[in-house]
Order: sequence, then structure tokens, then C-alpha cells
Amino acid sequence: MRIAVLGGDGFVGWPTSLHLSNLGHEVHIVDNLSRRWIDTELGVQSLTPMDSIQERCRIWKQESGNTIHFHLLNLAKEYERLKQWLADHKPDAVIHFAEQRAAPYSMKTDRHKVYTVDNNVNATHNLLAALVETGIDAHLVHLGTMGVYGYSSVGAPIPEGYLDVEIDTPAGRKGMEILYPTRPGSVYHMTKSLDQILFQFYAQNDGLRITDLHQGIVWGTHTDQTRRHEQLINRFDYDGDYGTVLNRFLIQAAIGYPLTVHGTGGQTRAFIHIQDCVRCIELALSDAPKTGERVKIFNQMTETHRVRDLAQLVARMTGAEVRMLPNPRKEADENDLIVKNDQFLSLGLNPITLQEGLLAEVVDVAKKYAHRIDRSRVPAVSAWTKDIAKRVDHDPEGKKLKAV
Amino acid sequence: MRIAVLGGDGFVGWPTSLHLSNLGHEVHIVDNLSRRWIDTELGVQSLTPMDSIQERCRIWKQESGNTIHFHLLNLAKEYERLKQWLADHKPDAVIHFAEQRAAPYSMKTDRHKVYTVDNNVNATHNLLAALVETGIDAHLVHLGTMGVYGYSSVGAPIPEGYLDVEIDTPAGRKGMEILYPTRPGSVYHMTKSLDQILFQFYAQNDGLRITDLHQGIVWGTHTDQTRRHEQLINRFDYDGDYGTVLNRFLIQAAIGYPLTVHGTGGQTRAFIHIQDCVRCIELALSDAPKTGERVKIFNQMTETHRVRDLAQLVARMTGAEVRMLPNPRKEADENDLIVKNDQFLSLGLNPITLQEGLLAEVVDVAKKYAHRIDRSRVPAVSAWTKDIAKRVDHDPEGKKLKAV
Repeated sequence: MRIAVLGGDGFVGWPTSLHLSNLGHEVHIVDNLSRRWIDTELGVQSLTPMDSIQERCRIWKQESGNTIHFHLLNLAKEYERLKQWLADHKPDAVIHFAEQRAAPYSMKTDRHKVYTVDNNVNATHNLLAALVETGIDAHLVHLGTMGVYGYSSVGAPIPEGYLDVEIDTPAGRKGMEILYPTRPGSVYHMTKSLDQILFQFYAQNDGLRITDLHQGIVWGTHTDQTRRHEQLINRFDYDGDYGTVLNRFLIQAAIGYPLTVHGTGGQTRAFIHIQDCVRCIELALSDAPKTGERVKIFNQMTETHRVRDLAQLVARMTGAEVRMLPNPRKEADENDLIVKNDQFLSLGLNPITLQEGLLAEVVDVAKKYAHRIDRSRVPAVSAWTKDIAKRVDHDPEGKKLKAV
Repeated sequence: MRIAVLGGDGFVGWPTSLHLSNLGHEVHIVDNLSRRWIDTELGVQSLTPMDSIQERCRIWKQESGNTIHFHLLNLAKEYERLKQWLADHKPDAVIHFAEQRAAPYSMKTDRHKVYTVDNNVNATHNLLAALVETGIDAHLVHLGTMGVYGYSSVGAPIPEGYLDVEIDTPAGRKGMEILYPTRPGSVYHMTKSLDQILFQFYAQNDGLRITDLHQGIVWGTHTDQTRRHEQLINRFDYDGDYGTVLNRFLIQAAIGYPLTVHGTGGQTRAFIHIQDCVRCIELALSDAPKTGERVKIFNQMTETHRVRDLAQLVARMTGAEVRMLPNPRKEADENDLIVKNDQFLSLGLNPITLQEGLLAEVVDVAKKYAHRIDRSRVPAVSAWTKDIAKRVDHDPEGKKLKAV
């Protein structure tokens, strides 16, 4: 297949591009490299030394003999160029990672909220409008998030996108299947909830074939392809905005920083290893909906854990100390989470578990690159409201105390 | 109260501004005048001769002694100016009409789809982000649409925003109240569905006080204030994109054009007179939710009718002929619609009915200004898909035949 990977320079986009190229697909990365600009804005960098996208593609060609094409394009702002690009390349599938993807970044200031909504909604909608206008019947695979479901405990397992409900009618009770009622917990998550409505409309009105992957929190760094050459390595974010919780615990352990748990740590979240992510995308591509079918929704996750349990797991493995901090987010202190992921399991997914993979990450990645960490970027300081901002701990290490 | 009316130069915005000014409120219209630009783009004009907003405000001052302030500002594009405006003026309430509001226009071409999403989503979100950032605790009243519910017949009355459902859980059946599952039928309606999610988030995360009015199709032209001077007259759209169905029937009757019914005319829709709209906004302002409360949703409509029944009603009244045409929209041929509007009735709304108001509209407006109608702008030609576009009737009058 000819596959466009929008946002193919990112944390999941890059290993996905390698994985699909390795399977023999013709891969085109379309990216505006905004994530690299945000590194510059925040003054942070990937823990792993990351080459330019052009250099990455050159090394991949050298290692595998396969070409990955790169196209610099801003999906959200360059609608006409996007349309022309689609008309010129006629992809069989489009994988859409091209959205600002950090909840804390989306809540940092009003400017970041406005950017996230403007960028993410227009990126998705421009893509949909351009597919309709060019008449290209590509299978669109979108990276959503488990966060669209929200994390209030309803006491029932979270289904894959659609919920069976009953309502009262004058003729008695009646069953309906609806999109799971969304309860996003940040501006970022909210944009993925908006995406769902966009997809529902374009699948119904225009017969677009769309798969939406509600992904859990990704952990890990390497995939089979990123391991093949030092310069193919994936990015690894550890800062308070872009670092995901488990990867942050790993680097905190590696540099003798406390494992920072926010609130009670009773938040239960869904997780998936990066290697399983790219495998899921391969599986989703093989199982496209038909024209006129509703949006196909998968839960792309393999395990659920409470945050404090993960901290304890990493602490036991590494001897690190756990520190409980005020929560910069507005969210429930504690929640249960049971998630259905039968569809990917039935398609053959064989998950990598935390128990088996975690130690390798600490040794291969966190410790290896620990010298590149800027400790001052580790705290999570983007607060969900101004009131919450007042109680955020900007210095969990207590350097001030040490300096006395 | 000091009230900002965003989009206060529009079809409902203008009479609302007059109505609130007449009640003694300090009214500030904030508008980028985009609706006037779209008239220019489409080569259409209001049936009624409409003065500039500055002139309208001058006449109102002369007639009533009250000042309506006008501020030229693009809500979707000028975030920093919006924030400054709010900080400077500190409104007690903000009424938000500032969105592209025609379904056919939103489906006209891909450019119109992209514009509608970009404009409407950013307008609403900029406003929300700016209210949070400035800390202004204004009551936000938003004009939504009945179209967010969709028009599939579920066999139960449509509640005011929230639906009681039951779900299966391992511990037995459990009741939940959810936002009514949305099923928008056009890109325009979809943006109002997206607005709902934005409102839900900002009410929950930031305690914004928000009322969302799911309005039916508006008919009529005059309110008590627009009648006070010829130059205070409201706009009246009759073209295929912006004209609402009943107002279009009235002008079609006035100029001897067939009453154009699309499809079977079995679409049931909700209606409300423009005078009742402005009264509803007054009522909504008086009944603001408290900080921390969920979004308050009203159904702002007073009657439901099938489109073909309305055509017959106007035909009987005027002797006009009814013409059945292919439907440019993708929608169900026939639907039932029962809508709850108990909240406005209990607040004292006393609706104007079609039966009592329709004839006055024909005589006072449609016939009076019939000489200003461009017949070539009457057909509704914006098609929902390219396939549908092929069967759209661009010439319901059959001028080609007449020319033989």
C-alpha cells in the first residue's frame, strides 16, 4: 500500500513509519515538524539524541534499502497544498497522528489552549474535507485517546467506542447504540472528542472509511526497527509537559530524582508499549471498515494500572523514592478503569507486559542517556486552573532546602 | 446589565440587541460583519433594505435615546484583541451569535466547509479561553440549534439537552444522564455539536456559567423594536443558502415563484418566531446557571411542522403553487419530531403561532419588498455530496421551458 503518515516525525509516528516501511509499504511522512519547534519553545529535548527527519530517512534507506519519503506540510494551515498533495500521491491509507498531543501543554496558558484547538480541529477537518474533495477513497486511521471516555467510574467496562443504552419512550423501553458519552479532562483530550464528531459526520455524509484508535498511555522507546541503528532511535520525552507518566518514572529513577506522584496516585490509566502501538496500527490497516459503515473504534491499550502502583513497581526495581505531590490537574483522585480491547486481541495482538519490558527500558534507555537530562525540566507545572496553579510544587527535589 | 452581543449585526443578533437595549441594558455589539461580506460573495442582499450597523445604531439612539455601542472585532482570528476587549469592558453577560449559521453555505464547497469549521470552532473556543484568562464571570448565552439532536426518529420526545439512559453493569442496570447523543446533518450543525463539548469542558474545568439555546428555524422579520423605524428593519434572507424555509415560501408566494419543497417534504422541523427568539434570550439571561453547575440547555422553539404542510398552508393563504424538487441535502425523507420546551414556557414565554403571524409577514414584508428579489438566487443549489449535486434542480421555475 501507499501510506501517508501525517505526523510521522513524532513519538508514535516515527516507529509506525519504520514498521510499515519494513513490511514493504510505500511510506510518505507528512509533517510540519511542530513537535521539534515545541522542544525549542520549552527548552527541552528528547532524552535520546534525535536526528533530523531527513537524516533519519537517509539512515533507514541505508539500513533497509527502503525509501521513506518526507514532505513538509502544515495540515492545519495549508489546506490547498494538502489537497494537491493527496491528488498527486493518491494514498491507499492515511494515518493521522498530526495533532498536538500533550494534555499539560494544552493547559499551560491560554495561548496553548487556543493553539491546540486551532491546530488539532483544523488538521483533522482539513484532512476530511480534502479526502472528500479529491474523491480519494483512502482508509483513514486516526490516533485518538482513551481520554475521550473520561475517567469517572461508571461501574462498567469501557466498550470499544459505542455504548448500548436503553431509553424510555411512550411505546416502552427502547435500546440504542450511541457513541460513548465523552468527558474529556483537558483541552487536548477535548480536541479528540471533537474529532469523533467530525468522523461520525464524514463517515455518514460522505462514506469515508475511518478507524479511530483510542490509545492508552504509551511507554517504552524501542521497536524492532528503531533498534537497528543508533540514528533511527525514537524520541523519549521526560519533561513535565510531554513526558508520559511511566517514562518519567524511569528517568527519575535513573537520575536519583523522586518518583513524582500527583494527588493520591489513585488515578487508574490504560497503558500500551510502543512496539504494540505500531503493531496495532498494522492490524487496524488490515481491518478497514467498508464505505457507508460507521467509524470503527478500537481501544488501543493492553493493561490498566493505578499511578501509585506503577511508582511502587519502579521503586522496588530501582530503589527510587516515591514523592506525593499536589496534583496540577483537575481530575478525580481515584477511579477504577476496566477496558475492553477484544478487537485487537482477536486480530492477533500479543501484548508486551510491563513486568517483562520495564527493566530493559531502565537499563537501555533511561540510564544510558541520563547525562542528557535537565533536572529543572522534570517537574510537571502546567496547572489546569489558576487556583490549582498556586499549589503546584515547582521543586519536588527540594533543592531550596538542600541549598540551606 | 452590561451585555456583549457577539454577532449583533445578524438576523437574530440585531433584534436581540434592540430588545435588550430597550429593556435598559447597556448593549455592546461585537461583530466582524462577515455576514455582510458573505452577501457580497454570493451576490445576494437582504430582501429588506439594510443600513450599515453604525447607521442602525445612530437611528436607534435617535428613536429610543439609548446607545448601542459597536465594536469591529473578529472573534475567531483576533484572540488578543478579544481578551483586551473583555478586560476593558467586563460584561455581565455575553450572548454569542458569532458563527457562520447556514447549513447550505457550509456545504457549498470544500472552502466553505473549511471556513465554517475554522471560524465557528475558534470563535467559540477563543471566547471560552478569554473568559477564563480574564477571570470575567459573565453568563455566556450561546445560540445553538435543534439540529445537534439530529432528525432520526427515536420515538421519544426530545428533552432539553440531556437524556436519561440506562446501561448494563456487572452490578445490574444503572441510570445515567448524558448529553443527548448528537447527530448533526451538515458541517454547520456539526460545529454546534462541537460547541457543546467545548461548553461541557469549560463549565466543568473552569466553572464558566453557560446557557446553550437549541434554536429551531426562525421565521418572521419584525420585532417591536425593528418596527419603530424603517432603518431599524431586520434583515430577511430569501436566497437558497441563507433563507430559512418558511421565509422562502413567503417570498416565493409574493413573486409568483413555485413553493419549492425538497424531497417528499416529510421533514419535520421546529420553528420559532423572531419576536419569541429575542424574548427567549431575555428569559435565558434571567435564569443563569450557578458556578459549577452543568451547562443549562433550553430548546428554543415553539411549534413543529412538516415542510410540506407549511407549503400547503402558504399555498392556501396565497394561491401559490407547490413544486416538489430533488433534495440537495442528505437527510431522512420523513421524520417525526416531538420536542420539549417546558423550561421557556415555565419562565413565561407566550408563543406567537404561525396561524396568527404568517399573513402579516406576507403583506408587510414579502409583498412590500418583492421588487428587490433576484429570482436567480432563489433555488437551493448547495448539495451535500457530489452525487447529490448531479440531481439538483437549478431552475425550478422552468425558465428554459418558457423560453422555448
